[in-house]
Amino acid sequence: MTTNLIHHEDLRIFAQQVIVKMGASEEDAYYVADNLVTSNLRGIDSHGVGRLKRYVDGIKTGYILPKVSRVVKRDSAVIANIDAMNGLGQPAGVFGMELAIEKAQSTGVGVVTVFNSNHFGFAGYYAMMALKHDLIGITMTNSEPLVVPTFSRNAMIGTNPIAFVAPTNTERSWVMDLATSVVPSGKLEVYDRAGKEIPTGWATDETGSSTNDPAQVLKNLYRGLGEGGIFPLGGEGEIHGGHKGYGLATMVEILCGVMSGGNILRDLKFYENEKYKHPGIGHFFMALDPSYFIDIDSFKAKMDEMITRLKGAEKAEGQDRIFVHGEKEFEECERRTANGIPLDERTAESLLGLSEEFSIDIHFIDSK
Amino acid sequence: MTTNLIHHEDLRIFAQQVIVKMGASEEDAYYVADNLVTSNLRGIDSHGVGRLKRYVDGIKTGYILPKVSRVVKRDSAVIANIDAMNGLGQPAGVFGMELAIEKAQSTGVGVVTVFNSNHFGFAGYYAMMALKHDLIGITMTNSEPLVVPTFSRNAMIGTNPIAFVAPTNTERSWVMDLATSVVPSGKLEVYDRAGKEIPTGWATDETGSSTNDPAQVLKNLYRGLGEGGIFPLGGEGEIHGGHKGYGLATMVEILCGVMSGGNILRDLKFYENEKYKHPGIGHFFMALDPSYFIDIDSFKAKMDEMITRLKGAEKAEGQDRIFVHGEKEFEECERRTANGIPLDERTAESLLGLSEEFSIDIHFIDSK
Repeated sequence: MTTNLIHHEDLRIFAQQVIVKMGASEEDAYYVADNLVTSNLRGIDSHGVGRLKRYVDGIKTGYILPKVSRVVKRDSAVIANIDAMNGLGQPAGVFGMELAIEKAQSTGVGVVTVFNSNHFGFAGYYAMMALKHDLIGITMTNSEPLVVPTFSRNAMIGTNPIAFVAPTNTERSWVMDLATSVVPSGKLEVYDRAGKEIPTGWATDETGSSTNDPAQVLKNLYRGLGEGGIFPLGGEGEIHGGHKGYGLATMVEILCGVMSGGNILRDLKFYENEKYKHPGIGHFFMALDPSYFIDIDSFKAKMDEMITRLKGAEKAEGQDRIFVHGEKEFEECERRTANGIPLDERTAESLLGLSEEFSIDIHFIDSK
Repeated sequence: MTTNLIHHEDLRIFAQQVIVKMGASEEDAYYVADNLVTSNLRGIDSHGVGRLKRYVDGIKTGYILPKVSRVVKRDSAVIANIDAMNGLGQPAGVFGMELAIEKAQSTGVGVVTVFNSNHFGFAGYYAMMALKHDLIGITMTNSEPLVVPTFSRNAMIGTNPIAFVAPTNTERSWVMDLATSVVPSGKLEVYDRAGKEIPTGWATDETGSSTNDPAQVLKNLYRGLGEGGIFPLGGEGEIHGGHKGYGLATMVEILCGVMSGGNILRDLKFYENEKYKHPGIGHFFMALDPSYFIDIDSFKAKMDEMITRLKGAEKAEGQDRIFVHGEKEFEECERRTANGIPLDERTAESLLGLSEEFSIDIHFIDSK
C-alpha cells in the first residue's frame, strides 16, 4: 500500500490538470478534482480518483462536454431550474448548490433543480457547502439505471442518493449521504475483485431472484440489457421493506428528473445501441435556514445534544461504539489529510496511465 | 368479519362525536376522525379507528389537551413554526400543512414545523392535501422512541415516517408513506396476536440482537425501559444498510424535533416515571409547486410516463405485478368505500365500549 500513498494536494492538482487538458476551465476542473479527492479523503474510495479516467473517457466519447455555459431557465426568490448543457456534473452541482444557498440566505429556503447534467461525484459534497453558512443542506441526484423496482427483474432506476447535512456547535456536523439501494454498485465491484460472494439480499440475477455472485450481476448490468440489478434499500420483496427503498429512489427520480424536466429511468444511460449519448442526469439542491424557525444557537446546541445522546446510548452486545452520520468520514479525513491517501493498485495504475497520456507528473509520497 | 363491517361515513361521524364529547371542537374532532377513517379506507388498519381509544385515553390522562389555541411563533413568506400547545395532533397537522400550501401557492415553496404536538395519525394524510392544488406534498413526524440506532440496544428514536406525494394527470397520484424502521410497531402486534414468529432482522431483544419473538420485543418496549426495539430500515448492523434507515430516522428527528425547537429522542415519551406527560411531538410540512420549475402539464405527463414505465417493467419470476406507491391503497380505498370497512374483533369491541361509555350509537352494516 505504501507505494501508492499520495498527498491530497498533489492528487487534487494532478486531477485538475488532467481535466483542464480535456478542455475544461481551471475552475470547472477544480470542482471535479476536489469532489474526487474529498471523497478519497473521507474514505469513500468508490467515488474517488479511481473515477477520473471515466470522466476523461466521457469527454473523449462526447457524452460529457468539457466547456459549456450553464443556463438558468427559471428563477424566482426561492426556486431555480438550470440547464447544465450536458457539461461536467461537478461544476453544475456547485453552481446549483450556491444558488440554493443564496436563496436560503435571503428567504430561508432555496430549491434548485439541474437537468442535462452528468455524474456529479459524491452527493454530500454539495450538501456540505451549506454548513459554513449555518444552513441545512440537501442534495439528491438520479443516476444510470442499476436498481430493480420491487418485484421486477429489470434495472429501471438509479442508486439515487440522498445527502442531508446539518450544522452543529461543538460536535462535528451531522452528514448523511446514502444510496437508496442496499449497496452502491462500487461495493459489488469490490467483492468481485476479491473473489468473494455477496450477501443474500444485495442484488438479483436475471430472473429477479437474489444471487450471491457479484460477477453475474455486474456482467448483466454491463451488458446493458438491464436484466437483474441491485435491490432497493430494504432488500428483496416487501418483507424487510424493499418497497421503501424503491419508494425513496422514486422520490429522488421525481425531484431530480421529473421536476427538472430532465431524463428519467432508462433514458439516463450514457451508452445505448452501441452509441454514446448524453445521459441527461438531473440533480436537486436545497438549503434551509434553521434560524427562520428558532434561534440558530439553540438549533446547534440541540444538534450537539442529540448527537451526544445517540452516541451515548447503550451498545448492543459485542459492539463497542455507536456512530452518528459523518463521524467515520471526518475521522478518516483527518487521518488521510495527515498521512496521505492510500490508493489501490488498479487506481494507481489508472492515474499513471493518465500521467503518461497527458504528460502530467504525479507525485506519490514514497517517490518524493 | 361481516358482523364488523361498517360504512366509512358512519364510522367517521361516530369517531368525531367521541372526540367532541372529550371536549374538542367539531372541526378539530373531524380531522381526528377523518385521519383515522381514511387510514382504514386505505387498508392501513394499524393507524385506523383502533387508535381512537388511545386518543380518548390521552385526553383523559391529560397528555393531550382537547381544546387549545395554536400559536404561530415564527412566520415569513415561505416558513412558519407553530406551537401546537399540546393539543390533538391531527388539527395541528392540518393547520401546518394548510399554511405550507398557502406559502407554496404564493412563492413556490412552503416549509412549516410544528412543536408541542401529539400523535397525528398517518403522515400521508397531510401530504395528500397538496394534491388538489397540483403541489408536491411532504410530511414527516417524530414519534415515541421504539427504534434502536445501529449497534445500540436502546430504543432511542421513533419510527419517524416520511410521506411524499406528487400529482399526476391520468394515473393515480404517486403517494409514498413509510416508516423509516423495517416495520411499524403495529406489525409486531399483528404477529403477536396471531402467535407467529417475526422474521429475523425486524427487531431486537434486550441484548441488541435480532429476535423472532414479537411478545418479547413488545414487553420490553411497553415496560418503558427502552431495552431492545425495532431495527431501522435496512435491518441489523450495516451489512444491509441498517445505518441508512438510522440516518433517515435521524434526519426526520432533526427536521421535526431539533428545527422546531421541540422534543427529541426519549423526551418524546408520554409516560415516564409512572406519570403521564406531554410528549411534545414535532412535525414537518412542506409543499412545493412544480410549475415554478417546468410547465405543470409537462410535469404531470412525465409523472404518468414514469409510473407507466415502472409498472410495465418485466416481473421477477413468480411475480405477477409491479406496484407504484399509493396504488394498493387507492384500490383498497375504492373497495372499502363501496363495501364498507371490515374491523377486527378487538377494534369492534373497543368501539362498542366507547359507544356505551359516551352513549353514542354505532351502526355496523349488518345491524342496519
